[in-house]
Order: sequence, then structure tokens, then C-alpha cells
Amino acid sequence: RVNGQRLWDSLMEMATIGATAKGGCNRQALTELDRDGRDLFVRWCREAGCSIDIDAMGNIFARRPGRNPDLPPVLTGSHLDTQPTGGRFDGVYGVLAGLEVVRSLNDAGIETEAPLEVAVWTNEEGARFSPAMIGSGVWSGEFDLDYAYSRTDKDGKTFGDELQRIGYRGQTAAKARPLAAAFEVHIEQGPILEQEQKQIGVLSGVQGMHWYDLTLVGQPCHAGPSPMEGRRDPFMALHRILEQLYRLAEDHGPWARVTFGDIRAEPGSRNTVPEQLVLAVDLRHPDQQILNAMDHSFREIAAAAAAEVGVEASIRDEWRSPAVAFAPQCVAAVRESVADLGYSNKEMVSGAGHDSVYISRVAPTGMIFVPCEKGLSHNEAENAQPEDLEAGANVLLHAMLKMAS
Amino acid sequence: RVNGQRLWDSLMEMATIGATAKGGCNRQALTELDRDGRDLFVRWCREAGCSIDIDAMGNIFARRPGRNPDLPPVLTGSHLDTQPTGGRFDGVYGVLAGLEVVRSLNDAGIETEAPLEVAVWTNEEGARFSPAMIGSGVWSGEFDLDYAYSRTDKDGKTFGDELQRIGYRGQTAAKARPLAAAFEVHIEQGPILEQEQKQIGVLSGVQGMHWYDLTLVGQPCHAGPSPMEGRRDPFMALHRILEQLYRLAEDHGPWARVTFGDIRAEPGSRNTVPEQLVLAVDLRHPDQQILNAMDHSFREIAAAAAAEVGVEASIRDEWRSPAVAFAPQCVAAVRESVADLGYSNKEMVSGAGHDSVYISRVAPTGMIFVPCEKGLSHNEAENAQPEDLEAGANVLLHAMLKMAS
Ligand SMILES: NC(=O)NCCC(=O)O
Ligand SMILES: NC(=O)NCCC(=O)O
Repeated sequence: RVNGQRLWDSLMEMATIGATAKGGCNRQALTELDRDGRDLFVRWCREAGCSIDIDAMGNIFARRPGRNPDLPPVLTGSHLDTQPTGGRFDGVYGVLAGLEVVRSLNDAGIETEAPLEVAVWTNEEGARFSPAMIGSGVWSGEFDLDYAYSRTDKDGKTFGDELQRIGYRGQTAAKARPLAAAFEVHIEQGPILEQEQKQIGVLSGVQGMHWYDLTLVGQPCHAGPSPMEGRRDPFMALHRILEQLYRLAEDHGPWARVTFGDIRAEPGSRNTVPEQLVLAVDLRHPDQQILNAMDHSFREIAAAAAAEVGVEASIRDEWRSPAVAFAPQCVAAVRESVADLGYSNKEMVSGAGHDSVYISRVAPTGMIFVPCEKGLSHNEAENAQPEDLEAGANVLLHAMLKMAS
Repeated sequence: RVNGQRLWDSLMEMATIGATAKGGCNRQALTELDRDGRDLFVRWCREAGCSIDIDAMGNIFARRPGRNPDLPPVLTGSHLDTQPTGGRFDGVYGVLAGLEVVRSLNDAGIETEAPLEVAVWTNEEGARFSPAMIGSGVWSGEFDLDYAYSRTDKDGKTFGDELQRIGYRGQTAAKARPLAAAFEVHIEQGPILEQEQKQIGVLSGVQGMHWYDLTLVGQPCHAGPSPMEGRRDPFMALHRILEQLYRLAEDHGPWARVTFGDIRAEPGSRNTVPEQLVLAVDLRHPDQQILNAMDHSFREIAAAAAAEVGVEASIRDEWRSPAVAFAPQCVAAVRESVADLGYSNKEMVSGAGHDSVYISRVAPTGMIFVPCEKGLSHNEAENAQPEDLEAGANVLLHAMLKMAS
């Protein structure tokens, strides 16, 4: 069993890096705070006897040797970056739970057959640099390194330059190696476990998600003398599209998700009808076929609303992460570990993307969820109970041991 | 009569300063381009024998002496700043028409009893620094100098610092002096004169306008695992408010205007429901009582929509410019000048705010409109016909002479 107090203390120490006034964390990818968080993790791993390897994407791999160095390792990990108004657990819990597994095995003097690795994946959130999960994505072959390096933040800074600047552009190729298995433990970021009073989520997969930029181009004109009638006003299309997309979510049942995370007006002058609006759209559904139908409807809705008011709509596909099913042997290892430990549990699908989505393309992968307060995440008030975090780390320990011995 | 070709040539030369790829102008207030435009104007005025005075707001007064230096001057003028995607005529036409009046009087060797002045008012557009018409507003006593100096642009730069930086913070107090009369000639920025095939608009006044910031505060949460039902999503309030405000405009007849020029999401992350949206709202009506009713409904609509979806709405009053009626003797001077010159014309109310709004509080004031192509303004494609611009300057010349002799 892991040491729950030590895990909690490490989480709280990491949470001081980028701590916000409202009790959350703002430690966005490839900032100086991200570097400080990485430095702390690397120091802790070295103190726990791990060797450190850093790849060209800044992914960090802390390795605890096994009896048989030729066996492929069992890997766990998650991310240290946060949302701009993020919490103390999203991602960082999966990383430090992995570290706690290593520390606990050290305490107990247990050697595994296969090596164990704890990974930190770069820029999982996708908040500063879109898309999400790009560190694990390049490693798994979904994205090119050049594509990743050329991604820009809102200030136009590139991923490659910022990675270099914080000193985490490593020598090792960002390329998958054979793994015996991969596991990731994470807070649920939704309300189900809490509502159903289950301590552990056994994940069968991850829902599909599509990201888009919808651009509405109208005709700038003066707010005063221009009659309402002749205007080609992007806001007139916007409200129709928002309303119909919320209705689209309703029409596709309780699992459909429609989110608008960002919007920008150009030129953005108070007394001028905007030339254009750019809206960030996030559509999700666990059933990829339903998500494809939503994708189709979204295009129709945008085109029809734009035509109705004489503006032009264009949709850029920013990112697609299709629905994922995890490897049966990893799901079984998690299920059996939960049973061994006697925790209440529920089989479920993740609503959020995780690095495991991309890892699962190149290695047998499984995930473990623990509850979080009111299901709140991507929010500074994000919270989780120490005993749940400990339980999740215990399940991780057992599942890793099953695959590594 | 003025020299229409010289007026056109001066307009085209000024338009090279801040010229945009789409044929417009981006010469925003207190930028280096604004300074270049001012420098050119000052040089032209000196060449035309005027003395120059600059006040603490950067307002420029070019004075052509009269026979009787003790008489209060007859003033004309407008602004040289533009919208970010502005045109070549909005404001600059009124300034250069004033200069053309001086040049034409010089050519004809005509001396007036009263001195004449051509003014450039700082930051009329309100695009870079809100509110609009702040240069004439301080001069007329509507705003304090400190208030003006502390206004910030989107980068947090202050009006006062930027004015100092471009070297146009003058020694003279920004304070109204007695004027015999003030006139301003401007493109209509709307479609009426063109549609009715009239060459000159004789203005009786300016409609009322209110500016607001509407802030919608919700609860940030994760785009994936958070059920649609429990969300407190500012976008869910936004589309209701947009729709109902457009309906509000419809309900208040053809003269009501509702415009949303800018919007911003915080934290602005693709996979997070925003914590808040801030929307710039511009409401106008020529009848101040109807505008007040619209103001009232706006507050009710915002509060009800926010309550319906569990977000919080707050409204900040950014600026109010009540409906204005111009001085009967100035309206008459314009009307008579148009009659003398034989131009087709129409009496009308301005849909846009102008420096004359504030000047009219401290001096008898009148305005003259000329048509612009398709009524388009605050747009790089803004256009006007040389013969109409010449006609407007002729009316200005005659009206000024009536009041100055
Ligand atoms: N776990 C998490 O917040 N992932 C970010 C990717 C997503 O948007 O689901
Ligand atoms: N003329 C003009 O564009 N004025 C700006 C003030 C307004 O918004 O009406």
C-alpha cells in the first residue's frame, strides 16, 4: 500500500508552484512555472533512485530499474501543466501517484521483473498551445515534431522556442518504445463517482472529441447611422448558432457535450459592427458515430445561420481525437486490483482527453479515476479527498505490479 | 467657392498616412501615425498663414486672423484619428474642408471680421481610448482632464502617456473659449442621402447614444466530463441576450440601433467553460425617451437571461451622450447657404456622435453632411464623391462667412 500522507504532501508542495489567489494553479505549459514544477519532479525522482530521460518534446521519463533490464517497462504518468484557471489535481495527481508507487516499492524493498517508468507528458491541457495531449501525441506518432514545434500561443510564441527556453528540449527522439503496459490515474473531472458514491472508476475508454474554429465574416459598419436591416453582422449569426448547438447537445442525449471556450472579435471597436468573430467550438460524444452526426449538423447549422443573415461562415478543424477503447488486459488488471483492495467502483468512459488516449495506440493501456468534489475541474476550486487519492494510487500500484512481475 | 481638386488632393495625401491594404486607413488616436497626420496638418496650416495653438488634450487650433481680433472666432473642425479598419474620409474630411476654406479665402484675398479657426479634436473615434469625442469633451467641460489622461487602451497604455509620447500635449488649458459659431462638415456614414439622391444634409441634431460593458460571470468547468445540465455557462446567457436585444431594436422602429462591437472570454481556453464574457454594447435612438426605455429593457433582458441559466450579469455604464439639438441660427446659416448654392438637400439627424455634440454645449453649433458610398463607414471601403465633398466644403465656406462677417 502507498503512503497517502506523503502523496498528499507532495501534491500540496507541487501546488505552491503557480498557486493562484483562489486556491488553484496556473502553471501553463512551457512557462517558467512549468519548468519549476518539472525541476521539482526530477529532483524527487532522482532522490527515489530513478534515472531521468528527456525527449525532444520535453516528455520526462523517470525509470526505476527492474530485475530484467531487457523487459519492456510498465509505464505510468500524466501531466504537470494546468489550465489558466486550473486546479491542484488535474494531471499532477497522476504524475505524483506514479512517484508514490516508486517510493512505496523502495520502502518495501520490492524489486519488479520489468522496469517501471513515471512519465510527465508535455502540454496535455492544450490551453496554451492547441491541441491537447501533444507531448504524448508526438511520442505515439499522431503528430509530427515539426507540427508541434510550430504551434503558437496567443502571443505568437512557438512551442519549440518555449521548450528550448525552459531547458526541457531533450536529446532522445520523441518516439514510442515497447511497453509492457501503461496506466494513468486521474481525477474524474465530472460528478458521476461522487454522485454514485463510488471510490474508483475503472475506465473502458475515452469519448471522442472534436475541436474547431468557427469564423463568421461580416461587413464592418458604423454603429450609429447604419440601419439594422442592411447590416451583415456576425453577432446576428452567432446567437443563432449558439442556440442551435446547445439544442443539438440536448437532442443527442445526456452524453453529448457542446462547449465554447473562447471568442474573439475583429477589429473589436465599440462603435463598429465587427468584421469577424472567431469562436472556439468543442464537441464530444462517447459514441464516435453520434459525434460524427453532431459534426455534420454543426456544419449545417453554421452555414444556414450565416446565410440567413448574410455573413460568411467557415469552419477550421483544429483537432480530432476519436473515441478510444482501452486494452482488455489493462482494464482487467485495474478491475482485479480494485477487487483485491475492496474499493467501491464503477466501469465508465472518460469525458476528458488524457495522454492515455495516444499511448493506447502504441501500448496496452488502462486508466483509473477517483472522485473530485462536485465534479468540478478546469476551475481553481477543483478538490479531491486525500483518502480517494490514496485509494487510486493503491489501485495503480497493484495494477502496475500485476503487469511488471 | 472652394477648390475641389485641392481638397481632394489633400485628402488623398493625408490618406497615405496609415493607409491599409484594403484602401482604408488605420491611424488610431495617439499613435505615431496620428502624430504624422497632425504634423502634416500643422505644416499645411502654417503654409496657409495660420498660427497654431495646441491644448493640454492635444486639440489643435489653427487660426486665421480677422479684421477685428477682439471678436470671438468662427470655428470649424473635426478629427484626424480613425477606426482600426477605418476609411479615408471619416473626420479627416471635416478638418481638411476647414483648411480648404482658409486656402480659398486666401486665394480670393477675402478678410473676415471675426477670426476663423480650424480645429483637430483628439480621439474622436473612441476606438483606441473609450469614450468617443473625448478631446472636444474635455474642452467643453463634459470630462475632467484627469479622467481623460487615465483612460487606457487594450495594452494598458494611458491616454496621458501616449499624448506626451507623440509630442502633442500642449501648454494651453483644454477649456472652451467664446465662439461666434462652430460648424462641422462630415460624411453621413449612413445611406439616406445617397438613397434619396440629396447632395447635402442639413443637420438639426445628433441622436442619443449609450455605451455599456455587459459582464456575464459563470462557473468554469471542463468541456468533457461536465454534464450540460449543471453548467453555469456565460455563453448560454449570451445568445439569449443577443437575440432579445436585436428584437428590442426591431420593436423600437427603424431608428433604433443595437451594436456589439467587441467581446472577450476569460480565461479563454478551448476546453473550459469560460468564467466570464465581457460584451461591448452600443444602444442608440434619436429620441432620448425611447433610448431611456431601451436602456431599461436592456437591464431587464440581461438580468432575466442570466437568472435563467444561473450566471451573473452586471452592466457598467461606459458612456452616455444624450440626444442633441443644434443652435437654430447655425442650422439656419447652413440651410441658407445650401439654398444660395442651389444644392439638393435634406434636413436630418446624425446617427453618429461627432465633436459638435460637445461643442454645442458651449457654443452655437451646426453640422453639414455629404453622402458616402452605400452608407458605409468604419470600413476600409468607405468612399465619397469628389463633387459631393466639394459641395459640402462650399456650404461650410458660406456658413462660416455668414457668421464671421
Ligand atoms: N484531462 C484534461 O483536462 N485533458 C485536456 C484535454 C481535454 O480537453 O479533454
Ligand atoms: N463619427 C464617428 O465615427 N464618431 C464616433 C462616435 C460614435 O460612435 O458615433
